[in-house]
Amino acid sequence: MSSTGSTISQLYCPKCGKQFSADEVHQLCDCGSPLLVRYDLERAKKTFTKENIGSREKSLWRYRELLPVKDDENIVSLGEGLTPIIPLKKAGSKAGIPKLLLKDEGIIPTGTFKARGAAVGVSKAKELNIKQLAMPTNGNAGAAWSIYSARAGIRATIIMPEDAPKITRNECAAAGADLYLVKGLISDCGKIVAASIKKNGWYDASTLKEPYRIEGKKTMGLEIAEQLGFTLPDAILYPTGGGVGIIGIHKALKELKELGLVEGELPKLIAVQAKGCAPIVKAFDEGKKESEFYPDSRTVAFGINVPKALGDFLVLDAVYETGGRAVAVSDDEILKALKELAEVEGSFVCPEGAAIYAAAKNLREEGYLKETDRVVLLNTGAGIKYPDTLSIEVPYLSKDAVL
Amino acid sequence: MSSTGSTISQLYCPKCGKQFSADEVHQLCDCGSPLLVRYDLERAKKTFTKENIGSREKSLWRYRELLPVKDDENIVSLGEGLTPIIPLKKAGSKAGIPKLLLKDEGIIPTGTFKARGAAVGVSKAKELNIKQLAMPTNGNAGAAWSIYSARAGIRATIIMPEDAPKITRNECAAAGADLYLVKGLISDCGKIVAASIKKNGWYDASTLKEPYRIEGKKTMGLEIAEQLGFTLPDAILYPTGGGVGIIGIHKALKELKELGLVEGELPKLIAVQAKGCAPIVKAFDEGKKESEFYPDSRTVAFGINVPKALGDFLVLDAVYETGGRAVAVSDDEILKALKELAEVEGSFVCPEGAAIYAAAKNLREEGYLKETDRVVLLNTGAGIKYPDTLSIEVPYLSKDAVL
Repeated sequence: MSSTGSTISQLYCPKCGKQFSADEVHQLCDCGSPLLVRYDLERAKKTFTKENIGSREKSLWRYRELLPVKDDENIVSLGEGLTPIIPLKKAGSKAGIPKLLLKDEGIIPTGTFKARGAAVGVSKAKELNIKQLAMPTNGNAGAAWSIYSARAGIRATIIMPEDAPKITRNECAAAGADLYLVKGLISDCGKIVAASIKKNGWYDASTLKEPYRIEGKKTMGLEIAEQLGFTLPDAILYPTGGGVGIIGIHKALKELKELGLVEGELPKLIAVQAKGCAPIVKAFDEGKKESEFYPDSRTVAFGINVPKALGDFLVLDAVYETGGRAVAVSDDEILKALKELAEVEGSFVCPEGAAIYAAAKNLREEGYLKETDRVVLLNTGAGIKYPDTLSIEVPYLSKDAVL
Repeated sequence: MSSTGSTISQLYCPKCGKQFSADEVHQLCDCGSPLLVRYDLERAKKTFTKENIGSREKSLWRYRELLPVKDDENIVSLGEGLTPIIPLKKAGSKAGIPKLLLKDEGIIPTGTFKARGAAVGVSKAKELNIKQLAMPTNGNAGAAWSIYSARAGIRATIIMPEDAPKITRNECAAAGADLYLVKGLISDCGKIVAASIKKNGWYDASTLKEPYRIEGKKTMGLEIAEQLGFTLPDAILYPTGGGVGIIGIHKALKELKELGLVEGELPKLIAVQAKGCAPIVKAFDEGKKESEFYPDSRTVAFGINVPKALGDFLVLDAVYETGGRAVAVSDDEILKALKELAEVEGSFVCPEGAAIYAAAKNLREEGYLKETDRVVLLNTGAGIKYPDTLSIEVPYLSKDAVL
């Protein structure tokens, strides 16, 4: 074994406080809550310094003290992480937020932020000697877990709604996953996965049902801090479906603060949903700590069509604790924002990424975001994965045409 | 002006030797050859050191001394470059090349290596005060130039065959380019572009008709050297259509050698084509310095369907000078290699990237590549841009199914 330097110490339940060994396979807590990973931050302090990190590999594995994988040999990597943060000067000026930034998770293996969760989740599964995992998916997570499982030599059973983005089917199939389609929703797929796991004893890789995906997503927060020179922005907007990203970013920033690497107030964490599927927004507006199932959900931003998230209470915690917000935008606003970002900034984002730009404009208009605020938009995926989102008509030219 | 530190000194013709100012707009040489950029390498030596470069931004702009843009304000960036090099241990062992590496250009804005040429080409166009450019494209180059032109505020007219990958149409349209389709080949598009440029006085951004795209592509060579600790691999395999990448890599490695940053023989540069479109291979097999138009070309790897490249003589130079090869693989080999890389390594590459893996296996089998060789495969784009390359059939499950 060649030690990564991970300071993982245990798993704990954020709801009932129960603790578990991090060297055994655990899924949910006995109380039904997702489990989180705790690190020995006092030990991490010794090596997790700005200087050390800055000179390490250009991937999320540079944050090894705060990641759960203990043995280098178990790291399954395709070079994920350290996605760029680019200034949106023109769009920001238009929106009245000149210091608007975009962290672009389209520039990562599989083209979405799901690669982070899969890289860390699959690596830890390998370390735990898992041979077969299963999960339901709206597309991108299944694609990422298929791809990383292939690299790890782990068998993956993936079940997705037939309406999921077609390219994600190809990714799963190309990687040799056992892929199945269902005429239904991700919740229907989830039931088949649960029953099959129970019958066969497979590892459950469903969102938040294993504790390590969130540790991968967390690295977005670590990177934002590092890339801004270990300062914190005033707000981070995040498209929120299952919410693992916003939970992870919140966890990351708190860990960095405990390590003494960042100072001051945490950025306002803003959960953005679509008006057609806004359970977190409804809970926030009603001052509640958990969300309710959102019936008949529907939005062009397929990745955030999650009517009831297992980690809803952790998302709401993140929002409440940081003085953030939960807001919803319409599909029309999403499509307009998508086109505007591409035309003005050359950023061809996914519909979910367009949603947060639309939300930022709305929040500036109502005065919640200030002109002086430094605001990070987290685009979760590349526009190229969604060829059918924009309907375009292109004129034809004859071979002897001159423009 | 805030100087980038570029040491660009002039443009020169690699065919007739004529020199041109790098502060004026130039397209082809009077003799019809592409022009190349020359740098003041003596001056570059002072700041282009391993230590300096290693601590710079995580993008291709870290190589600023060897890039043509003089003023920071003209840099148009979406965070492109420093794509990962990942080991292909399992595939390499199967192929008898244990030290097989993949440089993955799928992990870059727009999902292909075309982003490099566009980033540097558009930035220099901005510096030269260009307001309108035009080009024919097989898809990905047009997408990249549309996206970067949008960010730069430059108007882009893009003409592509209707058979080009559909997603690239959406990228151009989303970015607000003036996009047109033609029922024909890229050569038909090229004729319309040429006539329209002549009539309107636009900037010609066609492959190798402006000297700066190649400088962007060159950074792949700079990165390979830097990422391997300023050592050189034994061979680099490159999918070759227009050939700008292999020309650029060759130029980069020669510049690094002149700077004293790498030592020893240059890696064998291996141009890989499809059997259905192999003009460079034919020329190589016949010992010629230029290629002939390859009639009725056809291959599943659309990006290398280029029957006659303007820079063919520079590609052949690169191959001859380094003791390299030009080889072709069949579409069947390409599709098999694509599936194999995804299943074995989790690398979902584009068809062009699959072609070089197939070629590496063939070259190992015939003994040209050795078991001890360190071999870099350059995958030019993400598999997710080509949803129709693999035909897959996915079984359906009923909602009450248990696996």
